[in-house]
Amino acid sequence: MPHIPLDPQLPGISALFAYRPETAAPLGQLGEVLLRGPSTLTVGERELIAAVVSNGNECRFCTGSHSAVAAQTLDGGQAVVDAACGGIDDAPVSAKLKALLRIALAVRETGRAVTEELVAAARAEGATDLELHDTVLIAASFCLFNRYVDGLATVAPDDPAVYDQIGKRLIENGYAR
Amino acid sequence: MPHIPLDPQLPGISALFAYRPETAAPLGQLGEVLLRGPSTLTVGERELIAAVVSNGNECRFCTGSHSAVAAQTLDGGQAVVDAACGGIDDAPVSAKLKALLRIALAVRETGRAVTEELVAAARAEGATDLELHDTVLIAASFCLFNRYVDGLATVAPDDPAVYDQIGKRLIENGYAR
Repeated sequence: MPHIPLDPQLPGISALFAYRPETAAPLGQLGEVLLRGPSTLTVGERELIAAVVSNGNECRFCTGSHSAVAAQTLDGGQAVVDAACGGIDDAPVSAKLKALLRIALAVRETGRAVTEELVAAARAEGATDLELHDTVLIAASFCLFNRYVDGLATVAPDDPAVYDQIGKRLIENGYAR
Repeated sequence: MPHIPLDPQLPGISALFAYRPETAAPLGQLGEVLLRGPSTLTVGERELIAAVVSNGNECRFCTGSHSAVAAQTLDGGQAVVDAACGGIDDAPVSAKLKALLRIALAVRETGRAVTEELVAAARAEGATDLELHDTVLIAASFCLFNRYVDGLATVAPDDPAVYDQIGKRLIENGYAR
């Protein structure tokens, strides 16, 4: 049960957005810029970064939601998401995305874990400054979202079909409110 | 040296805000609502939560900046900030703020560490639903800010006077851009 009185019809972060619209607005805008705004990374690549970080943080609601978006937008679908969540090295994604996912998982631990070596490896695979910036900020943002969702004990549905629906809605409507 | 080309005149997060104004806007707005907006928690109490979480995450720039704001706005000044960063139990702050700081430090670790017991203890000291919500979201937000600042290896000045100046500016101008 959530730690504060939230609308029981709303799962995960949507209940928190309804509870506190003043903070929902900038958080939605941040998600929109990072995950849907103009970028040389595809929506699927950015959502995979979100899913892999959320999986590392063991946040069931965010992992389910962003895995669903990634599965619906990436070539290879759910199998690619499952592989990446299981370990970067053998995931069937580009060498550049692997290098960015390694940076994202370092950020998940602590910002100080992002070494010059990790950055150089991503650059060697063609990552740009802005892609490096956005990868770090997407990973950091999901360290916020995961803690927000679980720190207030919001409801995480069990039914995978619910996450497929959430994924569809996020693809159609994005994050801005 | 920062991992991406940032303005060398700008320390910490200000260099990142200048680099990517599209994400700076919602991040600034989030800080403004949480740390300066209408609240039953004082500015000093909210900035102390930010400082204690940043200290736990060993983010030198954020700890210096938000400790300076807290020291300039809390009764008891720097001694209170130093005591709270050293350990909650003996810090000279109210029982309610101690309970909220314990929740913030749990969030720092993982959202799942916020137990019913921690929440009940804060309620027993008079914490409201909104104070619980905002404490969790402030702590989660600094898990973002700390990782963003350190994940891109921004410059953290050594001179304590720089942080006093940053603190003064944040008190005068707030966070919105």
